[in-house]
Order: sequence, then C-alpha cells, then structure tokens
Amino acid sequence: MIRVTIFNENIHETRQPEVRAIYPEGMHGCIKKFLEKQDGLEIRTATFEEPEHGLTQEVLDNTDVLIYWSHWMQDEFSDVVAERIHQAVLKGMGLIALHSAHFSKTMKLLMGTSMTLRWRHGDRERLFITSPSHPISAGLPEFFELPIEEMYGEFFDIPKPDDVVFTGWFAGGEVFRSGCTFQRGRGKIFYFQPGHEQYPIYHDENIQKVITNAVYWCAPVRKLQTNPECTEVKAPLEG
Amino acid sequence: MIRVTIFNENIHETRQPEVRAIYPEGMHGCIKKFLEKQDGLEIRTATFEEPEHGLTQEVLDNTDVLIYWSHWMQDEFSDVVAERIHQAVLKGMGLIALHSAHFSKTMKLLMGTSMTLRWRHGDRERLFITSPSHPISAGLPEFFELPIEEMYGEFFDIPKPDDVVFTGWFAGGEVFRSGCTFQRGRGKIFYFQPGHEQYPIYHDENIQKVITNAVYWCAPVRKLQTNPECTEVKAPLEG
Amino acid sequence: MIRVTIFNENIHETRQPEVRAIYPEGMHGCIKKFLEKQDGLEIRTATFEEPEHGLTQEVLDNTDVLIYWSHWMQDEFSDVVAERIHQAVLKGMGLIALHSAHFSKTMKLLMGTSMTLRWRHGDRERLFITSPSHPISAGLPEFFELPIEEMYGEFFDIPKPDDVVFTGWFAGGEVFRSGCTFQRGRGKIFYFQPGHEQYPIYHDENIQKVITNAVYWCAPVRKLQTNPECTEVKAPLEG
Amino acid sequence: MIRVTIFNENIHETRQPEVRAIYPEGMHGCIKKFLEKQDGLEIRTATFEEPEHGLTQEVLDNTDVLIYWSHWMQDEFSDVVAERIHQAVLKGMGLIALHSAHFSKTMKLLMGTSMTLRWRHGDRERLFITSPSHPISAGLPEFFELPIEEMYGEFFDIPKPDDVVFTGWFAGGEVFRSGCTFQRGRGKIFYFQPGHEQYPIYHDENIQKVITNAVYWCAPVRKLQTNPECTEVKAPLEG
Repeated sequence: MIRVTIFNENIHETRQPEVRAIYPEGMHGCIKKFLEKQDGLEIRTATFEEPEHGLTQEVLDNTDVLIYWSHWMQDEFSDVVAERIHQAVLKGMGLIALHSAHFSKTMKLLMGTSMTLRWRHGDRERLFITSPSHPISAGLPEFFELPIEEMYGEFFDIPKPDDVVFTGWFAGGEVFRSGCTFQRGRGKIFYFQPGHEQYPIYHDENIQKVITNAVYWCAPVRKLQTNPECTEVKAPLEG
Repeated sequence: MIRVTIFNENIHETRQPEVRAIYPEGMHGCIKKFLEKQDGLEIRTATFEEPEHGLTQEVLDNTDVLIYWSHWMQDEFSDVVAERIHQAVLKGMGLIALHSAHFSKTMKLLMGTSMTLRWRHGDRERLFITSPSHPISAGLPEFFELPIEEMYGEFFDIPKPDDVVFTGWFAGGEVFRSGCTFQRGRGKIFYFQPGHEQYPIYHDENIQKVITNAVYWCAPVRKLQTNPECTEVKAPLEG
Repeated sequence: MIRVTIFNENIHETRQPEVRAIYPEGMHGCIKKFLEKQDGLEIRTATFEEPEHGLTQEVLDNTDVLIYWSHWMQDEFSDVVAERIHQAVLKGMGLIALHSAHFSKTMKLLMGTSMTLRWRHGDRERLFITSPSHPISAGLPEFFELPIEEMYGEFFDIPKPDDVVFTGWFAGGEVFRSGCTFQRGRGKIFYFQPGHEQYPIYHDENIQKVITNAVYWCAPVRKLQTNPECTEVKAPLEG
Repeated sequence: MIRVTIFNENIHETRQPEVRAIYPEGMHGCIKKFLEKQDGLEIRTATFEEPEHGLTQEVLDNTDVLIYWSHWMQDEFSDVVAERIHQAVLKGMGLIALHSAHFSKTMKLLMGTSMTLRWRHGDRERLFITSPSHPISAGLPEFFELPIEEMYGEFFDIPKPDDVVFTGWFAGGEVFRSGCTFQRGRGKIFYFQPGHEQYPIYHDENIQKVITNAVYWCAPVRKLQTNPECTEVKAPLEG
C-alpha cells in the first residue's frame, strides 16, 4: 500500500470562478479521482487553509508520496512546514512537484538553485519522451500535445537532473525540461511542468498517466525514522 | 586573471598549538603560498574573526573562485554571509569546499541534503582517480596516499555528483566519494574531502595539485550581475 | 510475468572440480534456485555449449531480463550472438552483467570503452550502498561483506554510470564501483562485480537480494519489435 | 599547443555545385579558417578520398582534438579507421562529432546505441543554452537562431549525456538535445547537431564560437601511449 497525500493550495479554485469551473472539486480532487482507480494506493488531500496547511508532522510521517501544487500562496506558506517537507523527503518520502511548485519554498530548499525560468500564458505544448526506459514514461506515446498551456522556458535554473523524462516544445518558440527526476537523501523527486490552473491539464489522459506512473516510481525504497546525523565510528571496521 | 579568495576559519590555528605547529600561517596561508606560484591568479584571504568573516558583498563581487575551509564555527557562521555566498555561486562564482566544509551552512544551502557521513580520526587514505578525463585530475598519479587523515565514510548524503573525480579508500575499512563536482546556477563547485586540521594535508604535493587544478576548473564561464529572476515573456519569440 | 533467462558459460563448473563443488548445478542453477522463490518470474537457463549458446533470436525475443556470467570463453563467444544480445538490449531487454562479464563482447559493444580494470584473486570485500534511494539497494544493510572475493580495482574504464549503487572496499587496498546502472536504447543494464567462480558468492544472501532486486528493476518499460531506424518526417508536426 | 585535425568527407562539396557554392574550400576549409584565428592551435585537415581517409595511425597519434563531419560515405568508411579513431578517443584524443556524424561508425562504436533520430530538411532552429556553466557555452547568448537547418528530432537514441549544453527548438514542432558531451576512456566527446551541408551553418558566428570553445574543452587531460589493458595486481597495495 502506497500512502499518497495530495497537497493543493486550493486558492485559485475558491477565488476564481473560471478555475472552479474547470476543477469544481479542486485540482486535488481531480487528481484524487484518477488516482483512486489505481490499485494499492491510499489517498488523502491537504489544502493551504487547513491548520499547518494540512501537512502536520503526523500526516508526513504517514505519507509515502506527496503530490504538491502551489502558486498564489508560496510566500505565505509556512517556513516550518516547508522545512518539514524538506526533511521528510530526505528521510525517504517521494515528492511530485507540479507546475508552479518549482518556485515553492520546499523545492528551493531541496534544489539549492534559484529555480527561475521564462514564462508566458496561453501557449501550446508538445511533450517528447527523452528517457524511454524510465518507468515514468511507461505506456505513453513518443510525444503528446497540450492544446493550451502556460509556457515555461529555458534556462530553467535547476541542478542537473538525474533523468529528463520529458522535454517540452512550445509553439511560442521555446523549449523546457518538462519532466525531471532528482534524488535527495533517501527520497525521490519528480518535477512535472504542466498544470496551469486556467487550463484543464489534469483532465488530460496522458498527464494522468504520467502522474500515476510517478507515484509508483517515487514510492520509498527505504525510510529513515529520524533525521540522518553524522556518525562517529568509534571502533573501526578493520583492525 | 582569476581572483581567488581563500576563506579559512583560522580558529584551530589560533587556539590549538599543535595545529599552529603544522600551519604557522594558518591553512589559508599555506594554500595561498602554493597558489601564488601559479600564473594568472590574484589571491586574497579571509578569516572567521574579520568583520562579516572577511566575506563582504564587495569581496564576493570581486571573487571568481572561493576556497572555503570551516569546522569549529559552523554554527556561529553568519546566516547572512552563508546566504551571500550561496547567491554568489548561483551567479557564477566557483566554490572549492574543503573537508569539514561539507557541513557548512553554505554547502547545505547549495546541496539541499543533510550532508551527513561517517567519520573517525587517525585513519589512512588512498585516493583513486575515478574520472581520468576530468581537468581536476590532470598531472596526478592513478592513486596516491595520505599517511594519516580523518576518515570520512559512506553513505555521504549528497545529491548525485556530476563527476566523482576521486574515490577514497581508508585503512579502517571504509570508502568515500572524496572529490565531487556539482553545478548550481552559473557556478561550479568542487568538494574535496582531505584536510583535517591536525594532519599536514595541505603540505602534500598531490593535494596542492588537486586544489590548483580545481581553481582553474571552477573559474566562472559567465557571471550574472544580479540574482536571476523569473522572466515573463511578453512578446513570444514566434508569431 | 517477467521472463528471465540466465546465461552462464558453465565451463568452469564442468572442467574444474573445485568450482563444481561450490556450484554442483552450475552458477546458473544456483541463481535459478533463489530466483524461483520470487513471484512473477518465469526462468530459463542457457549455457555456452548449447547451439548458439542457448541464446537464439527466439529465446531473446522472449526474454525480458538476461542475467549473464562469462569468463573463460569470452573470445570464443559468437560475434553474432553478442551482437544479437546488444540489439535486444537496445530494443528494451534488461541485462544484468555479472563479474567478469564486464569484459564480454556484449558489454564492450554496449559500453564503447575498454572495460579494463585491476584485479587480484583472494581478496576480501565490503560493499557500501552509495545510492540508498535506488530500488536495487532495497532491503540491504548499509554495508555488507564478502569474506573472500576477487579484487576488481579502479580505474574501471566504463562510461559514467547513471547510478553507482554499490562501492566496494577491498582489504588489499583498492576501491571499485561494484554496482553500476546504465541505460542504452530502451534497455536497462546493471553491472555487478561480485561473483568469482572459486568463491561461493552466489550463495550469499545479500548478493541474492541484489540480483533479485535487479531483475525487477531491469524489467522493460517498453519493448521495440524491430531495431530502431532513423525516421524521415515527411509531413512536419507544425504547419 | 593543441593539435587539431579536421576530417570532412568533402564529397558533397566535390559532387554538388550548390554545396560547393556555400563551401568553396569544403566545410573543413571553412572550419580551418575560423579556427586559425585562435591562439595555440595547430590545424590540419583530412578528407575521405585520401589514403586511409587521411587518418593514419601517425596522424591520430599526433592529434589532440579531431573534428569530424561525415554523411554520404558512412557505409564506405573504413572499418579499420573507424576502430582506430575509437581507440584514439579511449586513449585521450578529444572528438567533436558534427551533424550527421552521429551515424558514423566511430560514434556508434563509442556510444553503443542505435544513434537513430527523426529528421527533415528545410526547418528552422533556435538553440537554447541548457548548461550555462559549461565552457562550451562561454560567450554565447542565452539562445540563438539558425534561419534554415535540417531538423533532427527526439527520441535521439544516445546514452544519457554528461551535459546537454544546447537544446534545439524547431519551427516544425520538434525538440533535440543539440549539443551533448560524453566521456569515454580518457577522451572527451562533444556531439553538435547543426551542420547540414546545404545551408551555410559553419559560416554562422555563434556556431563558430561553439566549435572553437569545444576544441579547448576537448583537449586531452592525459593521453595513454598504448591501449589500456586489464592489470593483474601481483603484490597487493596492502600487506
């Protein structure tokens, strides 16, 4: 059983009728719905306005994979909770950071870079698989399209990814490393660019397939119970 | 001309006679001395007890490569200065982090991991070149030895390095990724494990060769004048 | 169902009584035995003296993961079959290359490097996990020992691995990237150093765990039916 | 002094007037011309119709960096010479493989993959720097354009590159890892996609800058005199 927590700000959906029209149950509700069709997943959700954003220590201790969407409230997001997520990843929790979550406090803590990029609303994207042996690409066509999406363009200031599973082409003339994996501590991270709130990205079947694959891929191989510490070796292994 | 700044805490040397005996001019003095024999380097030093640890914004703005040794005062090191170095690296400054600097605030900010490892004083190390096409390995023998050194052992909790230039064997039974490179933003980073203050590591010719090579390798390819920001593309490149 | 084929030369076992004493059913028989305890695997074996070394096109077409041990007959191994395995990997078949198989024709074709290393019989090894989030490391202790093993030492002339899951320490003073992963085409490759025929390596529980994990990890994400070819795009995707 | 050899088939230029019109001295002549403006380079050329394609053992033994363009005669290219280049790279010679040379015998030997891709004449390309700390990107704008170029599209069946220095956007709707680095043995390799013979690509200033940077980057760190071999360690490093 993989325990999945879907965090979504849920602010656009509550404040912007045009976003609510696309996601009447919130983006988290949409993602929960398609993940519930899978075997072996136990799914809960969390939103910005819940106490501690719904991401208490207890919730994270019982989460194997955290799916994370944020945008409007990134500055207001609790430093304490951002650091808590950071530590949970280092202890083994998987993290799927969606779209504007590249600029979340947590992703900045994990990546160590500025996470800056170029952006423009109302573009059109075609995603190419550039790592066809990666499990996150399973069952997907060699390339697929999003009729409307926000452009994110290079240079994307991230550390060198372990794998660039998807590379995006934008009609407006730009490219992007749209699906990237990273290891940090015992945790696996997948960053996936699609998902601007004004477009029905998470209703797209290919996108759903990617996120579903990523959940299984991000599931922990091992989990630490406590934060790692430097260890003095008092008796050497030899002699 | 590559402008090099050598930061050394210089606390062990001032408080511990046995360390001062090895490094009467401090480790920074020792490193400065062998680097001064090279062409094209302009070298200055900075120490913990100077105002802002000698690492003012003006100093960093005029530094191409920062060599950094720290240990005793890592908790006391200014958060502001640690973040200043972090940002300088992202803008293009090279960083050579030596020995216990793996656990400095700056390295934690840049790497995003716990930076934990196993350790034990008084071991013996043999370093093997595991990336013989890397410029940092130039002119060095396939392997070389340090008759006494502190053991640092795996698992070393770092992000996957770009290159593992040196892998260390320890007589006490452990291994370590002793020389690792990383890219962060526009900056290049070399972490090099040898350098416990109680042993004459920086007097060793091979070690001097490694650090010298690393200075040239870390020199900036480009430098940003200001911190990178997300850029809205108002007029698309196409159409 | 993952279809596993275990290729073993089976020459040492038939010609050398001391090897047969350790592996009365051959190394392939030993590996088959512990894999048979797992769910979802369909296992067959192949040996050097069978026609086409037991690795006909039909066998490879029906193999998801090939485990491969070779040593004595590497020069005599059929060029045609070596190239057939090479192509099968590029089309998606997983490959687990054991011990001296680093120097097989197939591994040289896949890696493109000399695959040279240092070696010495009768050493002692300790393997450290250096990628604890990798599925191949699941369930294993942070490090484990082989009381007797052939030393393989650096520099190991391989392309930069995707992951170094295990790093080996040898009592004789050397280190080795003992467990390495690679992607080639649609196929995943795991090279694992332990397995000298004169020592009971494949009877070791940790070694069995590693190979078992690797089978699941190497299973194809997708398989091509024919060799990939360059494709002329006659009608562009855009306008 | 870096000794550069520029190999160009020089078949298109001799047989096709429209190519000769663009490159009256051959593509090798054009490349030689802009490299000659640099300091510290000693440049010679070689073409397909010379004995041994102008790439005798003596020439390769005296080459630090080989620039290589091929297309029409890739099947007819000598197997012996292809293998000779392969071995020279493993011993430390740098290799800059241009455009259709991705499908040369030498690149297939070095990479081990099918090297297949999608292609279409008469497209338009924009190249983005995706590794701004890499020396090959020095002095170049964040992105630059080629008004007409052959499209090469993903999936490009290469091993995972060490660095993707440039990523290409094509007006026809495709993306490509256009500038990739690899290490093989002691040698460094840069593959660079632009350079279809019917378009004046090597007259472009940015392209010239890239190739010039690559020459310095590919220069050997060390060179072996003979092919590497497995080494038996008769006396262990440790008692």
